[in-house]
Amino acid sequence: MIETDILIIGAGPTGLFAVFEAGLLQLKCHIIDALPQPGGQLAELYPKKPIFDIPGYPEVLAGDLVNNLMEQIKQFQPGFTLAETAETIDKLDDGTFIVTTNKGTKHYAKAVAIAGGLGTFEPRKPALENISFYEEKGVEYFVKDPELFRDKDIVIAGGGDSALDWSIFLSNVAKTVTLVHRRNEFRGALDSVEKVQELKKLGKINLITPAEVVAIQGVDHVESITLDKNGEQETIKTDYFIPLFGLTPKLGAIANWGLEIEKNAIKVNNALDYQTNIDGIYAIGDVNIYPGKLKLILCGFHEATLMCQSVHNRINPGKKYVLKYTTVSGVDGFDGTRKEAEKAVVKSID
Amino acid sequence: MIETDILIIGAGPTGLFAVFEAGLLQLKCHIIDALPQPGGQLAELYPKKPIFDIPGYPEVLAGDLVNNLMEQIKQFQPGFTLAETAETIDKLDDGTFIVTTNKGTKHYAKAVAIAGGLGTFEPRKPALENISFYEEKGVEYFVKDPELFRDKDIVIAGGGDSALDWSIFLSNVAKTVTLVHRRNEFRGALDSVEKVQELKKLGKINLITPAEVVAIQGVDHVESITLDKNGEQETIKTDYFIPLFGLTPKLGAIANWGLEIEKNAIKVNNALDYQTNIDGIYAIGDVNIYPGKLKLILCGFHEATLMCQSVHNRINPGKKYVLKYTTVSGVDGFDGTRKEAEKAVVKSID
Ligand SMILES: Cc1cc2nc3c(=O)[nH]c(=O)nc-3n(C[C@H](O)[C@H](O)[C@H](O)COP(=O)(O)OP(=O)(O)OC[C@H]3O[C@@H](n4cnc5c(N)ncnc54)[C@H](O)[C@@H]3O)c2cc1C
Ligand SMILES: Cc1cc2nc3c(=O)[nH]c(=O)nc-3n(C[C@H](O)[C@H](O)[C@H](O)COP(=O)(O)OP(=O)(O)OC[C@H]3O[C@@H](n4cnc5c(N)ncnc54)[C@H](O)[C@@H]3O)c2cc1C
Repeated sequence: MIETDILIIGAGPTGLFAVFEAGLLQLKCHIIDALPQPGGQLAELYPKKPIFDIPGYPEVLAGDLVNNLMEQIKQFQPGFTLAETAETIDKLDDGTFIVTTNKGTKHYAKAVAIAGGLGTFEPRKPALENISFYEEKGVEYFVKDPELFRDKDIVIAGGGDSALDWSIFLSNVAKTVTLVHRRNEFRGALDSVEKVQELKKLGKINLITPAEVVAIQGVDHVESITLDKNGEQETIKTDYFIPLFGLTPKLGAIANWGLEIEKNAIKVNNALDYQTNIDGIYAIGDVNIYPGKLKLILCGFHEATLMCQSVHNRINPGKKYVLKYTTVSGVDGFDGTRKEAEKAVVKSID
Repeated sequence: MIETDILIIGAGPTGLFAVFEAGLLQLKCHIIDALPQPGGQLAELYPKKPIFDIPGYPEVLAGDLVNNLMEQIKQFQPGFTLAETAETIDKLDDGTFIVTTNKGTKHYAKAVAIAGGLGTFEPRKPALENISFYEEKGVEYFVKDPELFRDKDIVIAGGGDSALDWSIFLSNVAKTVTLVHRRNEFRGALDSVEKVQELKKLGKINLITPAEVVAIQGVDHVESITLDKNGEQETIKTDYFIPLFGLTPKLGAIANWGLEIEKNAIKVNNALDYQTNIDGIYAIGDVNIYPGKLKLILCGFHEATLMCQSVHNRINPGKKYVLKYTTVSGVDGFDGTRKEAEKAVVKSID
């Protein structure tokens, strides 16, 4: 069983920054995320887009902000359970928790911070009769590990940034990449569209438009798919079928944990510490709701910070915490590193 | 009279970032600060020191953070009344305000946000009988405008970073710089101490230690000062005497505005919008207090953001504000500039 002080559900910017604030208070964190990579919406939905309202950053790419947060927290050595969804929670008699994922991984923690954003991202699935049979048998809605596709034949379907960008990326990994879209027009970043155009000319991406996947075949794994091109059918051999039709966030299992829910978000005590109606469970970032709530990245940072102080009081009752400035006290990592301002010298001048 | 939507008192990081969030809501801001430069504690107390807990910045120098904030807000063209202290406030019948500074400058605003930090910085003054007579007549506790000292003889007293750094800076501006300290040892950044050492050798700084200024002379302006060097007295001609003995913050006149004060800070409604007991006056950043308050820069950013939303509702009652993401909506400056993410294209590939 994984053990930690604060179990954080959600590796978006809020969950990541919580690791830093917890670390300053000597609390260890472990993060669960349903996605294969940290960064939440920023990494999954708009990694290459600029954000203009992160305080102190006139402009920062969402992906760079995630990288900077990962760099900022690394000395506190957070644990990660990625590509798993937190499904059940048990509160033990002593007020601690066990959280179990859909894959059965168990996490024991003194406090739980839900930083689940808008929820887990559920893929929009193509309406094919037997598609659920092929899930994890050749049908993939996310590219969790590109290596899965090495030297394989793959078919990607979709007309947006994900379909374009993964076609580009996987054209260097897979044996063949076929990109299918029901229109001729793609919608995405100009350079992505141009790159696909170029790779098509080089024969590295096989483009079929307008077309739709209408059937999947295979005994116990995808072996081929059938396309409809303006009424004309064609079956092509493939090892994988990757429909990238967009994601919809769903609060999911957390909605059944006995937490007060309003407008698909978790009610918290914003007058104090962003704790929910269950003592020891906090909700921070996009996932919470309170009067005046703004679903902004910078708000999650503040909420995470106050949550950590509250957990610190919870774990160390009676111990008075004195706020320390990082500039003055430095930052002592759990990995033995220390960051600090250059010390003033006391020196005579002669 | 200066007119604005939100009058911000205090140009620290909290006040500065408020300008940005207000701008996103089409609200204009004007900032008053007692100091000659924006940046609050960061600029005045530790500009060259690193901060480690700004979210997304593994490390940033305090001075650089201030510069970045100034860059981030510039398209919203904030007005500044610098080197003046907000002293009195009048609430008009229609709920608007007039704030007047110690120099008599009047500011009319629809809402007031106090971002005054720990207060104005009061200089620690040397215990010299007639010193107040010479204030603004040759005795200066801050270097507001270095040009004041061009081609003048100046005496700086003190043994810390301010005394060292201003001696270095003004050695290129003043005719002569004399640095007086009651010990031989200085306490400051190593490179500052070394630089003063070097400038002394080059004859650009005249160093007198251990010594204390014990008297000031002059008819209606400083003309000379008297030093005590181990009992031995020496009088030297000078145009200015600049004692840099450190600063203590004082809430000052704001404490008499009828606001609820606790522990030298202003009580606010943190469950909603950081408003004080006086409708239309908000307090954000280090200057406010509420259960669980942390005097951290990142908390001020969140408070500023929620304050701006509340002011927007106050000024536009009934108008429903819909949160916009800067990434999606871009940022339209009051100076006509527009920042935005690259637009997606819709383009066919052939
Ligand atoms: C296109 C776009 C542009 C935006 N632009 C801006 C902007 O300019 N400025 C701004 O401030 N904000 C912007 N936002 C909003 C911003 O992205 C969110 O406020 C931010 O991502 C919230 O961070 P978070 O950490 O709270 O949640 P998220 O980033 O949503 O991360 C939550 C994570 O929790 C995981 N999760 C949820 N439930 C579970 C579970 N049960 N088990 C395991 N994992 C789970 C999810 O997989 C996800 O990775 C934008 C959003 C979008 C979509
Ligand atoms: C050495 C040191 C290290 C620190 N390190 C960190 C750190 O690592 N991380 C962190 O988060 N925080 C740190 N802090 C604290 C941080 O500097 C403050 O939280 C921050 O400056 C608060 O910002 P503010 O804008 O609320 O107020 P301030 O920065 O205090 O700015 C307030 C401004 O208001 C002005 N003002 C006040 N009253 C009036 C008036 N009546 N009229 C006109 N002007 C007025 C003042 O002149 C001042 O410029 C540190 C502080 C110090 C001193």
